[in-house]
Amino acid sequence: MTQPVPMVDVIRGDMVESRHAGHAVICDASGGIVRSWGDPDLAIYPRSSCKMIQALPLIESGAADAAGLGPRQLALSCASHNGAAIHTRPVTEWLNALGLGEDDLRCGPQEPADIPARDALIRAGDSPCQVHNNCSGKHSGFLTLNRHLGAGSEYHEPDHPVQRAVLEAFEAVTDETSPGYGIDGCSAPNFACSVHGLARAMARFAAARSGQGTREDAMVRLREAMVAHPELVAGEGRACTSLMRAMNGVAVKTGAEAVFVAILPDQGLGVAVKIVDGTTRGAETAVAAILSGLGVLDPQHPAARALLETPIASRRGIPAGRIQPTEALLTGWS
Amino acid sequence: MTQPVPMVDVIRGDMVESRHAGHAVICDASGGIVRSWGDPDLAIYPRSSCKMIQALPLIESGAADAAGLGPRQLALSCASHNGAAIHTRPVTEWLNALGLGEDDLRCGPQEPADIPARDALIRAGDSPCQVHNNCSGKHSGFLTLNRHLGAGSEYHEPDHPVQRAVLEAFEAVTDETSPGYGIDGCSAPNFACSVHGLARAMARFAAARSGQGTREDAMVRLREAMVAHPELVAGEGRACTSLMRAMNGVAVKTGAEAVFVAILPDQGLGVAVKIVDGTTRGAETAVAAILSGLGVLDPQHPAARALLETPIASRRGIPAGRIQPTEALLTGWS
Repeated sequence: MTQPVPMVDVIRGDMVESRHAGHAVICDASGGIVRSWGDPDLAIYPRSSCKMIQALPLIESGAADAAGLGPRQLALSCASHNGAAIHTRPVTEWLNALGLGEDDLRCGPQEPADIPARDALIRAGDSPCQVHNNCSGKHSGFLTLNRHLGAGSEYHEPDHPVQRAVLEAFEAVTDETSPGYGIDGCSAPNFACSVHGLARAMARFAAARSGQGTREDAMVRLREAMVAHPELVAGEGRACTSLMRAMNGVAVKTGAEAVFVAILPDQGLGVAVKIVDGTTRGAETAVAAILSGLGVLDPQHPAARALLETPIASRRGIPAGRIQPTEALLTGWS
Repeated sequence: MTQPVPMVDVIRGDMVESRHAGHAVICDASGGIVRSWGDPDLAIYPRSSCKMIQALPLIESGAADAAGLGPRQLALSCASHNGAAIHTRPVTEWLNALGLGEDDLRCGPQEPADIPARDALIRAGDSPCQVHNNCSGKHSGFLTLNRHLGAGSEYHEPDHPVQRAVLEAFEAVTDETSPGYGIDGCSAPNFACSVHGLARAMARFAAARSGQGTREDAMVRLREAMVAHPELVAGEGRACTSLMRAMNGVAVKTGAEAVFVAILPDQGLGVAVKIVDGTTRGAETAVAAILSGLGVLDPQHPAARALLETPIASRRGIPAGRIQPTEALLTGWS
């Protein structure tokens, strides 16, 4: 097996203090590898980076249109959100419009990453609920599809029709037979694929054009919903949100354990990154370096600089170091 | 340079999802390597794992006795604490006894890791202060030494007499000339050494016996203070606290960016671990495996099991995987 490639250095003083190695693939719409680092065939769990794939059956089945979902709900269905009010209010309204409520979700409760939302809960003496879970939009999408399919309430179980539909879409767009699944933090199955397969799926999202059939239509709608509502896909201060705002039409998505993907419609390219140690900081800096290398992210944009030369400071604000990509990600771009 | 060794696997479903590699040394009191993984000569920042070294001048100078410090203050001087009331109250009392206050600290404010303390601050509408900083005990020790030395208020600056005393002790017990320093999260300099040097220093703490001079006396007092007050060194739910409670006289200490050390007095051994990616979960599981291998931690003890087979579950409690040491740490023990 090809070893992972050092991609990100954490520097303190004059020394590399920590280092993140990973695998990455840039793929075109034909499925061909444009560039790769490490092992393209390594099987990984995409985790939340594949939420736009998990949302395909929601649209393709007709469930999204039957429920009157617009771009904001579609963006939330692809989101790992912060649990801020801008996320939890529309999710609650969406559930109510389906005649459902928080207790129909199966994602479990999670403390909001959004500090004002977190503090408001603590001040009120309330506990976080399932709507605060970063996956509550994806699960509202699952519930919408489930309503359309008329299946049972335990839509998160791997053999449920909702998850069988997800697997079918997942294997089709990755062009692989999934080697298996793991249970994700939100209790839904997360199907495995290779780094190459994940990049290939993103390239298909990138190359999709409207009017070319149900699948491409769905891909365009999800991609454009993410780009139109970057604040719904993650939240203030988050890399997905700031990177999409800094680029022109490129959709990006993070996943737990240091997965990151990107969809580049103008180039017809897809990107998948997996940092082997699972650290978010590694995946964020690596994907920012690749997007800069591909020419879609201005490395001088503040959102890019925050990831390409992330300052490390003491708790009194004394500069202490930085996080930056290694030469492996900074060189070799044509 | 010798490559880091895979030490910890994060398993989800049937697959290794993420992996942590690192360097580690077990050293005896003569400075000899008993066993090592990866590169013993790699220069690292020990970060908070060397707080017991940073506290040596506090005792050796006579400052601790002049201020009437007992084992609880000495344990706090070695602590990376949770900012719970059991930590912040004695630190405040210690500062007050010196005629000093929170604004004499230079560690900066930090939100408490202790959830009840954090929530109490939020409910009261208060901001965290410098006493909540996990290093406030170390800094109270610096202030105590500084009072004794009669030096200026900026005791955290690298050329201040307090930090020069720390460097002298650091180089003596690691038996190395430090290649440099980085600014730690608490704004104090953190001197670099090799993994071997850090393990050697811990072996000296392990082999120290009372009545063998100022340095060994100080080492014994600090080691015994940590073991006597594991709840002050970290806090409820933290690995340092639970591991020290689970063992008989062994002191352990974590440092940021995945450093972990152990002091084994009965064996006269010191241990130092650095996980290259800087993840706490990696360092905790690796040190638990080494302590089990050395026979000082019962692998069936709940505190050990929590690190040697850490359960991963979804937010609804569905089992999803586990974190466990690799064969490299589980085999080869005599």
